[in-house]
Amino acid sequence: MKTERILDFRSDTVTRPTPGMRAAMASAEVGDDVLGDDPTVQRLEERVAELLHKEAALFVPSGTMSNLIAVRLHCRPGDEMICEADSHIYNYEQGGYAQICGVAARPVQGYWGLMQPEQLEGLIRPQNVHFVRTRLLTLENTHNRGGGRVQPFSLVETLVGWARRNHLALHLDGARLWNASVATGIPLHEWAQLFDTVNVCFSKGLGAPVGSALAGPKDLIAEARRHRKVLGGGMRQVGVLAAAALYALEHHIDRLAEDHANARRLAAGLMEIPFLTLMPIPVETNILLFDVAPEWGTAAQLSQLLKDHGVLMLPTAPQRIRAVTHLDVNSQDVDEALGILRHVICEHRPCQNSS
Amino acid sequence: MKTERILDFRSDTVTRPTPGMRAAMASAEVGDDVLGDDPTVQRLEERVAELLHKEAALFVPSGTMSNLIAVRLHCRPGDEMICEADSHIYNYEQGGYAQICGVAARPVQGYWGLMQPEQLEGLIRPQNVHFVRTRLLTLENTHNRGGGRVQPFSLVETLVGWARRNHLALHLDGARLWNASVATGIPLHEWAQLFDTVNVCFSKGLGAPVGSALAGPKDLIAEARRHRKVLGGGMRQVGVLAAAALYALEHHIDRLAEDHANARRLAAGLMEIPFLTLMPIPVETNILLFDVAPEWGTAAQLSQLLKDHGVLMLPTAPQRIRAVTHLDVNSQDVDEALGILRHVICEHRPCQNSS
Amino acid sequence: MKTERILDFRSDTVTRPTPGMRAAMASAEVGDDVLGDDPTVQRLEERVAELLHKEAALFVPSGTMSNLIAVRLHCRPGDEMICEADSHIYNYEQGGYAQICGVAARPVQGYWGLMQPEQLEGLIRPQNVHFVRTRLLTLENTHNRGGGRVQPFSLVETLVGWARRNHLALHLDGARLWNASVATGIPLHEWAQLFDTVNVCFSKGLGAPVGSALAGPKDLIAEARRHRKVLGGGMRQVGVLAAAALYALEHHIDRLAEDHANARRLAAGLMEIPFLTLMPIPVETNILLFDVAPEWGTAAQLSQLLKDHGVLMLPTAPQRIRAVTHLDVNSQDVDEALGILRHVICEHRPCQNSS
Amino acid sequence: MKTERILDFRSDTVTRPTPGMRAAMASAEVGDDVLGDDPTVQRLEERVAELLHKEAALFVPSGTMSNLIAVRLHCRPGDEMICEADSHIYNYEQGGYAQICGVAARPVQGYWGLMQPEQLEGLIRPQNVHFVRTRLLTLENTHNRGGGRVQPFSLVETLVGWARRNHLALHLDGARLWNASVATGIPLHEWAQLFDTVNVCFSKGLGAPVGSALAGPKDLIAEARRHRKVLGGGMRQVGVLAAAALYALEHHIDRLAEDHANARRLAAGLMEIPFLTLMPIPVETNILLFDVAPEWGTAAQLSQLLKDHGVLMLPTAPQRIRAVTHLDVNSQDVDEALGILRHVICEHRPCQNSS
Repeated sequence: MKTERILDFRSDTVTRPTPGMRAAMASAEVGDDVLGDDPTVQRLEERVAELLHKEAALFVPSGTMSNLIAVRLHCRPGDEMICEADSHIYNYEQGGYAQICGVAARPVQGYWGLMQPEQLEGLIRPQNVHFVRTRLLTLENTHNRGGGRVQPFSLVETLVGWARRNHLALHLDGARLWNASVATGIPLHEWAQLFDTVNVCFSKGLGAPVGSALAGPKDLIAEARRHRKVLGGGMRQVGVLAAAALYALEHHIDRLAEDHANARRLAAGLMEIPFLTLMPIPVETNILLFDVAPEWGTAAQLSQLLKDHGVLMLPTAPQRIRAVTHLDVNSQDVDEALGILRHVICEHRPCQNSS
Repeated sequence: MKTERILDFRSDTVTRPTPGMRAAMASAEVGDDVLGDDPTVQRLEERVAELLHKEAALFVPSGTMSNLIAVRLHCRPGDEMICEADSHIYNYEQGGYAQICGVAARPVQGYWGLMQPEQLEGLIRPQNVHFVRTRLLTLENTHNRGGGRVQPFSLVETLVGWARRNHLALHLDGARLWNASVATGIPLHEWAQLFDTVNVCFSKGLGAPVGSALAGPKDLIAEARRHRKVLGGGMRQVGVLAAAALYALEHHIDRLAEDHANARRLAAGLMEIPFLTLMPIPVETNILLFDVAPEWGTAAQLSQLLKDHGVLMLPTAPQRIRAVTHLDVNSQDVDEALGILRHVICEHRPCQNSS
Repeated sequence: MKTERILDFRSDTVTRPTPGMRAAMASAEVGDDVLGDDPTVQRLEERVAELLHKEAALFVPSGTMSNLIAVRLHCRPGDEMICEADSHIYNYEQGGYAQICGVAARPVQGYWGLMQPEQLEGLIRPQNVHFVRTRLLTLENTHNRGGGRVQPFSLVETLVGWARRNHLALHLDGARLWNASVATGIPLHEWAQLFDTVNVCFSKGLGAPVGSALAGPKDLIAEARRHRKVLGGGMRQVGVLAAAALYALEHHIDRLAEDHANARRLAAGLMEIPFLTLMPIPVETNILLFDVAPEWGTAAQLSQLLKDHGVLMLPTAPQRIRAVTHLDVNSQDVDEALGILRHVICEHRPCQNSS
Repeated sequence: MKTERILDFRSDTVTRPTPGMRAAMASAEVGDDVLGDDPTVQRLEERVAELLHKEAALFVPSGTMSNLIAVRLHCRPGDEMICEADSHIYNYEQGGYAQICGVAARPVQGYWGLMQPEQLEGLIRPQNVHFVRTRLLTLENTHNRGGGRVQPFSLVETLVGWARRNHLALHLDGARLWNASVATGIPLHEWAQLFDTVNVCFSKGLGAPVGSALAGPKDLIAEARRHRKVLGGGMRQVGVLAAAALYALEHHIDRLAEDHANARRLAAGLMEIPFLTLMPIPVETNILLFDVAPEWGTAAQLSQLLKDHGVLMLPTAPQRIRAVTHLDVNSQDVDEALGILRHVICEHRPCQNSS
């Protein structure tokens, strides 16, 4: 029952460039981007700005750098940013907001990544020497640890309205904004226009090997270029990577619908397997979270057994596993993975009723 | 009904030096403490170390600096400290832990300032480039925003045990540790020995005009001296202030019991006044919190009316007021304040049943 | 020949409060300055602002904190400050400008503390992502390591003019501005008006036990209050210290002329002692530097021998010693110290011609 | 006389990937390097470690990030690094050492980039709360602003010996260490072994599009991986870029001798052109600096006129121009550039004697 190749559901970051993308990279026109001479990078930056209806965009090596620069743009040391308690920026970026920016975080525990408007009450610090200055609200859409949940547009509007009334800056960590847009049919720019700055990633669902972009007003993006430089993110003939991102923008946005369909397919299958509980329901984009019943064992045990059978999924908590669909897994792979999953579950602890 | 003098319940920091303390200051032997020549400061530092059973202590201008130095001692940029969500260090020190230390905070919402052991589960970050390093647990005792609550000794032991098992450093913000000790009868050093470093303040209930101390192992305190210097806390003939603190240590610890009795007296009276709700119950030390019923009005309104009648109390939330007893208010003052409070409440919105 | 009491020429920071100053402290009206209630601190801040013709001033525990706050006011991380290579801010404040502010320094090696206008050429960094932003020029007057040299007023005007043309902010470390004013007869405010912010110290020649002030425009000083708080410099009934500073402003400025006369007297005597070379000449204020000839021995050796005879002077380099006159040494003390110095020098290595 | 294509002597960073390099990139085996899955990146890191005789190496997007990480590895906030006053790390990296690391710099003005041993005297700060801690010595080899000068091996040994005796860490900014090695015949690892950490760049003379590596002991490089992550330098399928670097290591090191020969050829020609002065002499590697006589005009004017004729050279000071040879200019290009240079010089201000 062991599959010949690895079925990798750890993340949508694991995709390898397609032949078409490889070709685009191989023929990319390049120059020294630190000196402002790389035409492919410039085209990419213009394209992103256009898609998001922003004045300008900046290519950066990672979403982490994009978010870090955003915090530096909006905040000074001694400011505070409000973020969701399970958000990527608060949990998975090594605390760069504090470590590199000297900024405090005010985490708000949302419901599967969604902050509720009533939680905002009292969050603005009084103006007084005792307190940090509340300066920034960041949202993440889709929400990774929330199981790929899309932030409902009307909720985002409410949160943003509150932030505006309180003179906060707004940053959207839209690493997977493409998925939110495809899942809802709401164009990228409608989400983006609500925020001052937006981060988007090319190396996740879009399948490009490397890179993200930070988009926003011209003056902020000019300043962002300075921050990118001091952080060491200024690269030379990086048009090679930008070409892959441009290719992805052209060919890989619409197809995210397939990833979503595959995720739903995986979800449907999972619900039939004993000892596993899908959460939250329904699956909205390309990320699934499911919990392993303690009476079966732990997430780490399941993940290891799956790996032995050629299926990679990531434990994200003692009983929780994350699976992500992407360019390099198709519906057959999903079915195969489901088979292995059922096999592994029932082999380890005999299942009574199979479906 | 207006009192002739101001009854100031805003904080125990408002006390003015007593004549005895003034005399001690006036005759203090001093020297240049930056050059290590102030004998009074040295005596104070030795006395604090002795009381807390620590190897050494350092006199600093404020509890804020003491806590800030502790974070710098235990953490490097990129580390994370666990603290209670309502703690002073997280809320009232302008985010120095992030702003000055580059350290992230992991706030845990306790019950009136008391973190529960089950909340600790999962708080240690995995060892992985994505994550900050969990490095420090800080506790505050008594807990200011928790209404002067004493952290139960056995709870502290449990939290500390967990931290030790996870190789965390431990810092106690004992700004009001004197109150915890007097309220429970547990000696200062029994609390202190559970922690690596301890901050104590002389300018709160003890009634000295200025100053705090950070106590801990010799090598850390030597390093703390460096941090104090770079922050600008190195002072010259500061024995003048140390003399007041020494006087306070000798004369003002035991008398905190009076403040606690006055706080209970104030609490008992408050419970009889309509529209006011004491929280939490019972009052354990010298801090009271009470909520004003919205149908009466807001905390800001009540505070202003009280001020017009010569009673100062601090609004700490839209409906919440804090009152603190100390050296400069006695039981008569408490009764007088209660009278004014009842008067103001009932004048503003007629009370049906008086007690 | 050993003196009965210690003659302490290490620094003008070693002075102990006079009886009059003690009395002023003992009767000072105080309040909680963190809550804005200390009338003595307020009077001091107003008095300093008045003397310097600035809108506002802030009392702080030390000159180090004052300078640190100034850098934070004028610069953000990624900015650069130009300073003299031997200045206090660059050498003796533990690199707070970098450590706490994230600011780079561009040290310029002056001539005994005096930067020359031609050294400024090319110091402004180009506007380009590769470079820090040149933002601040700081001067120190009088210049400590420059031997108490007064920055000539016309030189200061020239340097300041250059800075203004290049849109730099200007901070004066006037820890000993009192001495510069008394030595030249140029009022404090004429120096101060050339700068955006000015630091003055009460604990040096003025003889107060503790404290400095930062003066400047109202909005910057309001912001400085925030910085003081996060650094831990907010103190409670600190009017006790402010009273000493106010007393010093009233009684101890004009008498600095005596310190200068004593320094010249010391200098004249030193020039007659073999193996010692005074530098630079002439002595302008209350600080002297002199070099010990290597054929005699080292500064550390001389300093130790002097100490054995009750005279304290500070070695500041392998062959260099600093001596400072102040409130607690008079002309007789100077003569006595000179006698001991000659004795120690000649005893250690016989002198041929005595004077 | 105008050339058809652009002759670009601005920097050796401007090279475009060769067809062979493009092919290597197009066929590179890749994986998610953040998850540790990219075999090409791993091969590159091993190869660099091998070449430098270091335990480990880390691929990073730029030399700026490599140097920044090195400072973070060796220093904490409050430490000081000694560097040459014209070094890249002090001048061209936006002060990251201070801005991001909180580290102070002690710049030493060398002779064309070479610090002299006698300049080190007195540089170690005393151990005292007033002072930063001297912690790191960085050298740059070859030295960019020093005109591509190679640090003489015996000089490096002397400087390093002094640093070791004073317990300093040692970092080599070897962005162009390849050139130093080729110019002297001294193997890379002999230079590298003198230092704790070494930065090398693939995107300069080696001609790869993007990337640098930091090499050193295993534990430091593991820690460097954390720093790379927080700075945003963690990239996904970045083997595409690593493949180019590997190709460059195999094919483009030895050929640097051609660049050096071309630089000498350019130098020889320059010396025959009036109004231009080559400095310093002789040209050792691939970088030339020359000064334009003020009576002719400014560097900016000459640079603009050259640009109009298709030759790019970079003004680095009001009268100074830098020219760099590399993979994309051959000896014919040099001759052509010299012809244009002579033409432009003499056209603008008639030359009396041509050679």
